[in-house]
Amino acid sequence: MTCNTTFLGLGAMGGALATASLDADRPTIVWNRTPHRTQRLAGRGATDASTVEEAVAGDGVIVACLLDHRSVHDVLDPVAARLSGRTLVNLTTTTPSEARELATWAAGFGIDYLDGAIMAVPAMIGGPGSALFYSGSAIAFENHRALLDLWGESTYFGTDAGMASLYDLALLAGMYTMFAGFRQGAAMVGSEGVSATDFATRAAPFLAAMTGSFASTAAIIDARDYAGEGQQSLEFTRSALDAIVQASIDQGVSIEVLRPVHDLVRRQITAGYGPQGSDRVFEEMRSTR
Amino acid sequence: MTCNTTFLGLGAMGGALATASLDADRPTIVWNRTPHRTQRLAGRGATDASTVEEAVAGDGVIVACLLDHRSVHDVLDPVAARLSGRTLVNLTTTTPSEARELATWAAGFGIDYLDGAIMAVPAMIGGPGSALFYSGSAIAFENHRALLDLWGESTYFGTDAGMASLYDLALLAGMYTMFAGFRQGAAMVGSEGVSATDFATRAAPFLAAMTGSFASTAAIIDARDYAGEGQQSLEFTRSALDAIVQASIDQGVSIEVLRPVHDLVRRQITAGYGPQGSDRVFEEMRSTR
Ligand SMILES: NC(=O)c1ccc[n+]([C@@H]2O[C@H](COP(=O)([O-])OP(=O)(O)OC[C@H]3O[C@@H](n4cnc5c(N)ncnc54)[C@H](OP(=O)(O)O)[C@@H]3O)[C@@H](O)[C@H]2O)c1
Ligand SMILES: NC(=O)c1ccc[n+]([C@@H]2O[C@H](COP(=O)([O-])OP(=O)(O)OC[C@H]3O[C@@H](n4cnc5c(N)ncnc54)[C@H](OP(=O)(O)O)[C@@H]3O)[C@@H](O)[C@H]2O)c1
Repeated sequence: MTCNTTFLGLGAMGGALATASLDADRPTIVWNRTPHRTQRLAGRGATDASTVEEAVAGDGVIVACLLDHRSVHDVLDPVAARLSGRTLVNLTTTTPSEARELATWAAGFGIDYLDGAIMAVPAMIGGPGSALFYSGSAIAFENHRALLDLWGESTYFGTDAGMASLYDLALLAGMYTMFAGFRQGAAMVGSEGVSATDFATRAAPFLAAMTGSFASTAAIIDARDYAGEGQQSLEFTRSALDAIVQASIDQGVSIEVLRPVHDLVRRQITAGYGPQGSDRVFEEMRSTR
Repeated sequence: MTCNTTFLGLGAMGGALATASLDADRPTIVWNRTPHRTQRLAGRGATDASTVEEAVAGDGVIVACLLDHRSVHDVLDPVAARLSGRTLVNLTTTTPSEARELATWAAGFGIDYLDGAIMAVPAMIGGPGSALFYSGSAIAFENHRALLDLWGESTYFGTDAGMASLYDLALLAGMYTMFAGFRQGAAMVGSEGVSATDFATRAAPFLAAMTGSFASTAAIIDARDYAGEGQQSLEFTRSALDAIVQASIDQGVSIEVLRPVHDLVRRQITAGYGPQGSDRVFEEMRSTR
């Protein structure tokens, strides 16, 4: 086995991944649908493959970082039959179901499949704070750890190829929702002329500190015990949310983001759980599978 | 002027506020609708008033910490006429509009009104991390600073009596929405058997770190410039949210909390702003007043 690494897709992220490989003096083969994108790396010593066939002609690991699930099939379907015994590390963003589909597809051709999710922007690759999640082939994760660790902190989430993506998307769900909450608060104080910048100076440390309570919320959710001591009741939470919603309405601010947060609490109270802990809303969110 | 302080309402929070006053060796008068709640503090030297009239008979500052806006009127309307020239610090949770109504009501009786919002639970009062927001009478805030500072860090938000409450509710809007996002992520990974506790160990530092981006989001919102360099586009955000929503559906998890976050982005794209920064959703949230 050579230690060549093939990079398919040299967009912003694929380019950053391949650059880290070159920076580590690894033999690096690059291919991109639109050829000009390979030039910069070829100038730094990468082998510029003009076709996918040429790019995968060796026997090293193949790293795909393309646009989406469909583009992975577009690029790899035509050459799949000759990839038996090879390792494919796919860092293209996909849903968990799409990652699992690719794992099944790869298995059908005898390809060892490792799915990855990147918790970083291209400029962060190889630097502090960059984290990548992997799932699928345990052997691929072990054998190519030196390569993977060039990009950031590598964490393996088990053989279900969908787990890296699921974990990634779960964290992003938290992040996008948190930002929606930040914007809601900024809109509320903004209605009285307070700048979002002023609000951020208070909201950032407050919300950062409040993440310290995730562990206790999690313990309640895991135990499914919403009647234990010291929990903030649904009724208490409802009156706080009533006030937040009313204040938003009074101030001319949208309540769209707040509505499901408020509704979940109100429905739990209607269902008779008012004195129980507010984490009980999780019972309506958790998977029904 | 005596330095007596009158506390109306000795619930969990009112009790903590009055205790801090006693602990500081201040002459403290206490009253509660249900009399037995005053006994513990009377035993520690507080003057136990059996009626509101008796509680407000002196000339010191009056601190109200009752259930809600209505209960403040219930307790104070009958004695309002004799409170001219006195200072009322109201720490009962109200909406901004309710706080403004109380300020107007107080002004009508010549009462100096300071509204407060408590960013702490009773056990935190007087300890590290306790913060209280005030707005309304600047003179009351200045004159009684020694008392207020017994309870936690005091911040004054200007003469509009509604501002302390508005700022408080804005931060709570951020907090409740962030927790909804945490629960969404926990439900997603939970669908594959990952515990919420495991998820919390990653989500807490990730979201805490992401609050570091509130300042840049805020700068964009304040400038209303969504076409500047380096912004994550609405289209990019949409494809991430598409994947998060699809993954939730695939995993049998509710998408209720995600729907408005997703819809805001989709509507901005439909309106033709796809290549602009995702903070542009704020334009649909901000006050229309
Ligand atoms: N950028 C980030 O911050 C970031 C963070 C985490 C994850 N990711 C993920 O990384 C992947 C790549 O992102 P990026 O930022 O590098 O995007 P990008 O700059 O837009 O690059 C997209 C790449 O995919 C190629 N491509 C698209 N459709 C194709 C097709 N049908 N056949 C062959 N090649 C195709 C493009 O080739 P052409 O040059 O020919 O168009 C280009 O190389 C995405 O899945 C993204 O979600 C990105
Ligand atoms: N606890 C917290 O973590 C927290 C945090 C921030 C803000 N606050 C705010 O602080 C205020 C008090 O909260 P708390 O935790 O002390 O609540 P609590 O323990 O339920 O006490 C409520 C108090 O209000 C009195 N009250 C209710 N309705 C009344 C009426 N119509 N007339 C006269 N008195 C009435 C109660 O008297 P009885 O004893 O006779 O029922 C009791 O003294 C609330 O506005 C709350 O939102 C609380």
